[in-house]
Amino acid sequence: MAMLNEKLRKIYDAAGAEALFLESDFLRRYLTDFYSTDGFVLVTNEDCFFFADLRYFEAAEKKLKGSDIKVVEGGYRDALAAAKPYRTLGIPYPFVSVSALRLYEKEGHETLDCMPAFKQAMLIKSEEEISRIQRACEIAEGAFQLLLPSLKEGMTESEVAALLEYNMRTLGAFGVSFDTICAFGENGSVPHYETGSRKLKFGDPVLIDFGCKFEGYCSDITRTFLFGDDRKHAEFKKLHAMVLMAHELVKERLVAGMTGRQADAIARGYLRTKGLAQYFTHSLGHGVGLQIHEYPSLSPRSEDILENGMVFSDEPGIYLAGELGIRIEDTVYLKDGKVVSFMKNTSRGCLIL
Amino acid sequence: MAMLNEKLRKIYDAAGAEALFLESDFLRRYLTDFYSTDGFVLVTNEDCFFFADLRYFEAAEKKLKGSDIKVVEGGYRDALAAAKPYRTLGIPYPFVSVSALRLYEKEGHETLDCMPAFKQAMLIKSEEEISRIQRACEIAEGAFQLLLPSLKEGMTESEVAALLEYNMRTLGAFGVSFDTICAFGENGSVPHYETGSRKLKFGDPVLIDFGCKFEGYCSDITRTFLFGDDRKHAEFKKLHAMVLMAHELVKERLVAGMTGRQADAIARGYLRTKGLAQYFTHSLGHGVGLQIHEYPSLSPRSEDILENGMVFSDEPGIYLAGELGIRIEDTVYLKDGKVVSFMKNTSRGCLIL
Repeated sequence: MAMLNEKLRKIYDAAGAEALFLESDFLRRYLTDFYSTDGFVLVTNEDCFFFADLRYFEAAEKKLKGSDIKVVEGGYRDALAAAKPYRTLGIPYPFVSVSALRLYEKEGHETLDCMPAFKQAMLIKSEEEISRIQRACEIAEGAFQLLLPSLKEGMTESEVAALLEYNMRTLGAFGVSFDTICAFGENGSVPHYETGSRKLKFGDPVLIDFGCKFEGYCSDITRTFLFGDDRKHAEFKKLHAMVLMAHELVKERLVAGMTGRQADAIARGYLRTKGLAQYFTHSLGHGVGLQIHEYPSLSPRSEDILENGMVFSDEPGIYLAGELGIRIEDTVYLKDGKVVSFMKNTSRGCLIL
Repeated sequence: MAMLNEKLRKIYDAAGAEALFLESDFLRRYLTDFYSTDGFVLVTNEDCFFFADLRYFEAAEKKLKGSDIKVVEGGYRDALAAAKPYRTLGIPYPFVSVSALRLYEKEGHETLDCMPAFKQAMLIKSEEEISRIQRACEIAEGAFQLLLPSLKEGMTESEVAALLEYNMRTLGAFGVSFDTICAFGENGSVPHYETGSRKLKFGDPVLIDFGCKFEGYCSDITRTFLFGDDRKHAEFKKLHAMVLMAHELVKERLVAGMTGRQADAIARGYLRTKGLAQYFTHSLGHGVGLQIHEYPSLSPRSEDILENGMVFSDEPGIYLAGELGIRIEDTVYLKDGKVVSFMKNTSRGCLIL
């Protein structure tokens, strides 16, 4: 008789539904470790079924042979039919569309949100997950190191982003974890800037926020530096040092057991003493895993308790609209109660190329 | 007094709600032509408001100055407060999470699905949209042309995909429209293959499915060719010619007024006469626009009527599990009743490098 493995059992029990029905690709991957852009997972008290259509059936069979997961050839219709006997379906509310909900309701199901059960499970990363994130971080850092000597006056933001992404792919990344943000000069003052066609000039501040995926897991890193020193950036360097101090203080003082709010306050409190808190217009950090933004949250309002095995970003930044932006970000995790950074090979200081 | 522009008015009226409330980034972009990863659009009978937080406010103000859209500095809370007086909210059910729905309900709103109104509007592309898609297609083709002479034995699928994506970026793409699929040899038999570390060998069939974004709009193209001729591919060449014929017949015979089902039947019917229909395991095509998969659908079950100004893929393929896969795809549109391909610069035939 088949049984749920420990991970599945924990999530199933915590969800409290008769069956879980999952369409989201990252949750499918989390449960089965098989990647597909389409497919459906049904978890019952006894079994976990993966419904794959003809595009994926062959690959899924191959990957999941001998696992606790039963691969079934079929599409949405088949998955819904298999779910029919289970009155209460656990579905991840943040990742299920209203269209899908209406369909489940039409099929006679009641639903409840199983995302809290997933969130709880996904908060703490396994060693396997940590090592994938480590690899994603090493690739990102390696790509950045390769990029620096290639930067030349006249390159556009878009070209620089492209080269960095190419470097990540050649170093083994499966793709980017989000569209690379590359901002020259005053463009850095838009925290989520859309990389454009501004050309690199001598003396430009450069802000690059990037990351890649390795076996589904993300890295996230930001570096801000100067492309040559035109001697007009005394203020920039001063502010850069303060952002860096905020970043490093978090690594030093954050300990397991703190809340996300307390972690955020380490950086924000320091910037406040420098009169800069009002320019720190976003949260300190966010969880990183199969998704680039997941749990825990490190923000002024977060009551998430930070624990060993959690992975998140440490990314204080300050933004003076139309003038400059500085952000310094590592992906880090908690081990033995303290912060360990995945980033080991790139300078966080104010590089001058 | 402010007024809705023609596009907004049409969608608002068709939706039949007191206000539209939009969180999805591509719908925000469609309505406002401003790109952001976050923000909220509220459309009432009189006005269209764009709620941007500090990350985007500056850029949104700059972009939307003088337009019919009012930029408001604020986040989710502010947008919800502004929506409060409107009892019935139009929300796009396929793109709204159950979590968001529960929140609207808690705020006292009833909801209805405004996606049919958007779908109807987005089906027919404006000249501006067509020209952006044209540019996205030209970039993709140019990147492919640049790629071919760079292919060398021993390169991995992932490296080839990376180089192609780099080429697209340097030619002006804003990013990829989906993760590039690059499959060597028998890997081509998985239609949605995850690009991996298989190395390129002399005589390998190569299937590359790729596309990029230009100002938000997508291109989608697939080419299948041989990396050198080891004289073992007589069958492959024969099948390639048949897939190509299926692809070309669609361009020749598809006329405005047909349904998606009839279009699909052109390719499927031809492949059936060759005994290959059972290997054509997906639909003929899908709409292409701000999203890589949108309306219309060209499938055996689609009753969508194909009209001038619609943009979609023409992508028949055959897949022999574990052996080979061949897919040939152009992004095309309907003009003066006939199919016009956006692809003009790459061979669809069985290239032998």
